[in-house]
Amino acid sequence: MGLRVAILGASGYAGGEVVRLIDGHPSFTVAYLGAHSQAGRPLGAAHPQLSGGERLLASNDPEAVPAVDVAFLALPHGASALTGAALARRGIKVVDIGSDFRMDTAARYQEAYGTPHPLPDELPAWVYGLPELFRARLVGAERVAAPGCYPTSALLALAPLLRQGLIAEQGIVINALSGVSGAGRTLREDLLFGAVAESVRAYGVTTHRHRPEIEMGLELACGRPLRLLFTPHLMPMQRGMLSTCSAPLAREATRADLLGALREAYAGSPFVSVIDEPPQTRWVVGSNRAVLTAYVDARTQSAVVLSVIDNLLKGAAGQAVQCANLMCGLDETEGLPWNGIMP
Amino acid sequence: MGLRVAILGASGYAGGEVVRLIDGHPSFTVAYLGAHSQAGRPLGAAHPQLSGGERLLASNDPEAVPAVDVAFLALPHGASALTGAALARRGIKVVDIGSDFRMDTAARYQEAYGTPHPLPDELPAWVYGLPELFRARLVGAERVAAPGCYPTSALLALAPLLRQGLIAEQGIVINALSGVSGAGRTLREDLLFGAVAESVRAYGVTTHRHRPEIEMGLELACGRPLRLLFTPHLMPMQRGMLSTCSAPLAREATRADLLGALREAYAGSPFVSVIDEPPQTRWVVGSNRAVLTAYVDARTQSAVVLSVIDNLLKGAAGQAVQCANLMCGLDETEGLPWNGIMP
Amino acid sequence: MGLRVAILGASGYAGGEVVRLIDGHPSFTVAYLGAHSQAGRPLGAAHPQLSGGERLLASNDPEAVPAVDVAFLALPHGASALTGAALARRGIKVVDIGSDFRMDTAARYQEAYGTPHPLPDELPAWVYGLPELFRARLVGAERVAAPGCYPTSALLALAPLLRQGLIAEQGIVINALSGVSGAGRTLREDLLFGAVAESVRAYGVTTHRHRPEIEMGLELACGRPLRLLFTPHLMPMQRGMLSTCSAPLAREATRADLLGALREAYAGSPFVSVIDEPPQTRWVVGSNRAVLTAYVDARTQSAVVLSVIDNLLKGAAGQAVQCANLMCGLDETEGLPWNGIMP
Amino acid sequence: MGLRVAILGASGYAGGEVVRLIDGHPSFTVAYLGAHSQAGRPLGAAHPQLSGGERLLASNDPEAVPAVDVAFLALPHGASALTGAALARRGIKVVDIGSDFRMDTAARYQEAYGTPHPLPDELPAWVYGLPELFRARLVGAERVAAPGCYPTSALLALAPLLRQGLIAEQGIVINALSGVSGAGRTLREDLLFGAVAESVRAYGVTTHRHRPEIEMGLELACGRPLRLLFTPHLMPMQRGMLSTCSAPLAREATRADLLGALREAYAGSPFVSVIDEPPQTRWVVGSNRAVLTAYVDARTQSAVVLSVIDNLLKGAAGQAVQCANLMCGLDETEGLPWNGIMP
Repeated sequence: MGLRVAILGASGYAGGEVVRLIDGHPSFTVAYLGAHSQAGRPLGAAHPQLSGGERLLASNDPEAVPAVDVAFLALPHGASALTGAALARRGIKVVDIGSDFRMDTAARYQEAYGTPHPLPDELPAWVYGLPELFRARLVGAERVAAPGCYPTSALLALAPLLRQGLIAEQGIVINALSGVSGAGRTLREDLLFGAVAESVRAYGVTTHRHRPEIEMGLELACGRPLRLLFTPHLMPMQRGMLSTCSAPLAREATRADLLGALREAYAGSPFVSVIDEPPQTRWVVGSNRAVLTAYVDARTQSAVVLSVIDNLLKGAAGQAVQCANLMCGLDETEGLPWNGIMP
Repeated sequence: MGLRVAILGASGYAGGEVVRLIDGHPSFTVAYLGAHSQAGRPLGAAHPQLSGGERLLASNDPEAVPAVDVAFLALPHGASALTGAALARRGIKVVDIGSDFRMDTAARYQEAYGTPHPLPDELPAWVYGLPELFRARLVGAERVAAPGCYPTSALLALAPLLRQGLIAEQGIVINALSGVSGAGRTLREDLLFGAVAESVRAYGVTTHRHRPEIEMGLELACGRPLRLLFTPHLMPMQRGMLSTCSAPLAREATRADLLGALREAYAGSPFVSVIDEPPQTRWVVGSNRAVLTAYVDARTQSAVVLSVIDNLLKGAAGQAVQCANLMCGLDETEGLPWNGIMP
Repeated sequence: MGLRVAILGASGYAGGEVVRLIDGHPSFTVAYLGAHSQAGRPLGAAHPQLSGGERLLASNDPEAVPAVDVAFLALPHGASALTGAALARRGIKVVDIGSDFRMDTAARYQEAYGTPHPLPDELPAWVYGLPELFRARLVGAERVAAPGCYPTSALLALAPLLRQGLIAEQGIVINALSGVSGAGRTLREDLLFGAVAESVRAYGVTTHRHRPEIEMGLELACGRPLRLLFTPHLMPMQRGMLSTCSAPLAREATRADLLGALREAYAGSPFVSVIDEPPQTRWVVGSNRAVLTAYVDARTQSAVVLSVIDNLLKGAAGQAVQCANLMCGLDETEGLPWNGIMP
Repeated sequence: MGLRVAILGASGYAGGEVVRLIDGHPSFTVAYLGAHSQAGRPLGAAHPQLSGGERLLASNDPEAVPAVDVAFLALPHGASALTGAALARRGIKVVDIGSDFRMDTAARYQEAYGTPHPLPDELPAWVYGLPELFRARLVGAERVAAPGCYPTSALLALAPLLRQGLIAEQGIVINALSGVSGAGRTLREDLLFGAVAESVRAYGVTTHRHRPEIEMGLELACGRPLRLLFTPHLMPMQRGMLSTCSAPLAREATRADLLGALREAYAGSPFVSVIDEPPQTRWVVGSNRAVLTAYVDARTQSAVVLSVIDNLLKGAAGQAVQCANLMCGLDETEGLPWNGIMP
């Protein structure tokens, strides 16, 4: 029958993708579905695209969750701290897709979110779940915080170049473009079709809470503190994310040096492809892949690294399942789509 | 009756917008429409949205153009050099919406386009037509090269801050997002709906020919040479352009300092608005306006400047008419829409 | 100075378009702007695309409206009955863009909306404002109910053919496709980008309240009762509406007969074009035009009529201004755009 | 290793989807990939979203195809007749996704396509591959012509109601809405993003070649000849198809009668769902499902049936694999996605 899985927040976009992936996973079985305002309704009311739509959504209350092997939390910011800790205490492996356990320190959490962490003593117990950079820590782990979508795409682009000393720690600029599903299913006026289609905009300029997470990830990767500039943008599309990252070269380097460093870093990572042309987000929609390339701008002695992912898969649900595979000793790729769906 | 106008390249997107603006202009009258492959067909075949669709498209041949007061050239790169020079020699005021006469020197042209300029001696006679930065040179001018769309949005964002010494010359990074109409009406596989919708991508990374033009414009504005990093992106939308520009602060400055410098620079420019929140491209679709804002990122001591335009109006046809107004001694705003059309 | 105008419901999509049109109108001047939840805020907060954004939105309360010549009501269903009647009693010409006064009888209103009309005795005083079909009644009228968007596109397509006896009264099928702006600016989950983009759906199947209005309009046009089938669909686009209408031929007829009847009917109507190919909605976005064509399907002896409009202009704000022009003895086209904006 | 498969036309949209499905299929293995203009290039050049992108595209020439068990032809109209016949003569099971073998008679082919069929004697050997209506003929079949996307959606909607005598043969009206991928990957000006986004249009009015195919399918299903009106429309979206079908009721019937007839007809069809609300195309994007509902319009005594599919899966590649499963004695659902991908 396989390992039993609970999915809380199953009515949202990321939660629905976890359900879809687990339903198709050879080693996991859905044992429990939780939701907040949709509790008591069938899964199909929230996700008419999914089979088994007659399954009832129960509560997000951790006490209602039966004894399962793994719990996925796809809850809003702030809602997974207590729930995740409670489930973990019961010996359930927890993958938090939310943001509550991503930071390494309470201070960084406060900087990002503006409030004290509710359970600061818990933070060291959670592993930051980006397999391509921190795989060893994830094998057999009990508590994993899956990275945000922006950090995933940016860290994959920059970490190997920083580690190799190819780019400087200071002067990094990240401009990231996200499909609307990254904002979730919330009913907000700025997410109406009339406010999104045929338009682009920056938001969270200088203040987005994924910036401290990216800095943390890069510091974990290269061992040195840094400060970077991050500007996210909302795109008139459902899915997909492109991070265009630039940084001063730290030493003389060619494009081949950059591509070589990326290829070497991801030689053992089946979900990362390094290519020779600018990747398009549609190539990875429906896939758990990240596709990267890099350029050298000789005139300014800068590196430009481009990184695309599907924000709901490699940026959320897919990465969470990838982490769960590692936590449970399974093959990293089990149950995860490599192919995208295009057009 | 007004001043008589010829429009060459009238079958393209920018050309069609010039026709629309001139048809609604109180002081100009369309006297001649030229086209290339569509020559001999009615205007309505190319532009079913326009009135007077029964008017015939004649040739783009400059010898076929009657004695007019002003000629607008909306031709592909390389096609306006000889035509523009020929028309100018006949005493016709020429506004070139194309790229042939934008560069100040033959060397810069060669750097941008990879070929020698066909008429290098002509270059000094052409004024770079960005009214908000170079208005004085445009009043009464005979030959004007209207800037490209990317340069327009980026120069409006950065020039005042450079002039005021608020940002550094080195370290400027421009990430620009453009609607598809910026690529014109060409039949290219990468412009098919199936290749554009629900996707974003960077292109021309480190090599886009608007980068030298932006550098030239900033050098004209601040008097000092500089090198910058420019990465354009294609958006799944018809119109609109957002440039997200960052640069190291050159001295201690607050957000109010940046906004103040921008507001002061554009106090006499009716088509530029400086606001306090991130502008959205849809706010200016259908309008000749540019909308700007700026932020200070204190942690990295950087300025972030956001600038939106309609790439076909302020980035092409609208700006050309604005230039023509100044060339003919008319009010800069005559016949130009300030209001956008939303949603 | 021109005639003074009040616009209630100015914060919505249709209301904003009325503001834009009146600001550009040679004979009208905005004297008052009313709003509901946005009252007290500046116009620019609701419509960042409009000039004069610093003008304050006042109340929708009719008693707050000063002595104006014309009032436009762009209010939700049910909100204009009392307001419209109150303003009309003060001698103000009223154009109701909403649905409260469109029906000819209280019975038809009840059928469409499921509730009794609040002021049934008022109904006969209101003229149904589709100038191309009922122009004579509109000249000098005091109270006009502008048609809905679906009825506008369908009535223009079918009325002349019914009047000429070319199509049968029974067996009419209308499939209509609308951009999302037709649903207004309401915060509804089914109008989120995530629920609209890359998808189409029918809604209101057999029950949409515009069906009785279309039947009424056709009965007014041809003098005979009829029943038709109407199915509206929501499109992944901002603006534009296409009605694909079919009906059994009532007598032997060719395509030329149908096109001839349409051309004859609209010979004096500057905003209706009859063409020979299927019209596209984008051709009329930004325009007050309707574009029609018709076909004969010989095998089934049916007529197929296609009709496109901009749902916010010819389907709402533009038509309202067209009506106001006629009510005030002005030229029907004054202040109204014929050109569309494309792409 | 499984059954060996050749896929001709692998560089197109439908061909790419066949590759993706077969690569994930437990019983089939890709043994040969053919292409026309892309022959000699790697699969990844045409389909960067697919794994195994280094596999070379060979020729579409049937003589180049090795001994395989099944061949899928995803070729343009007219290109599969000779190829399909040649492969079949070699004992290879052939599924033609193209249109060459769909018609039952040479006369119907001529009516639809305007030219004589190149191999009229072959036609009787090919089975029309809509499993939900003609499953018995497909089990073990050697030559199958998979239906077009429009016919698939319309036939599923109407055939059971016709068979049950619930709707009349005459008076059927089908309005169908298709995503752009239905037009394939051809380089056509009317398929540019600038010509498709933010617009809808009808095309092929009264003349579309899927109309005779729909009539044929309904005649096969109900045994009586009929003539219907079919109007296809192009939607600003990549994938998805909605057919809105209406027909006079042939006898007194309620909505429950219609839904009951549909549910009974598809009780054994795992890929058809009959629901109680209007289906949305996005619910089936990425899925091989069709979702249907039906209404009775009491006033006009009509049935309205709504039917959505993914035009590239149930309307092309998915259905072809479904047919191949049946041809090879496999479970109908093998290797086919039931879940859609949303948003």
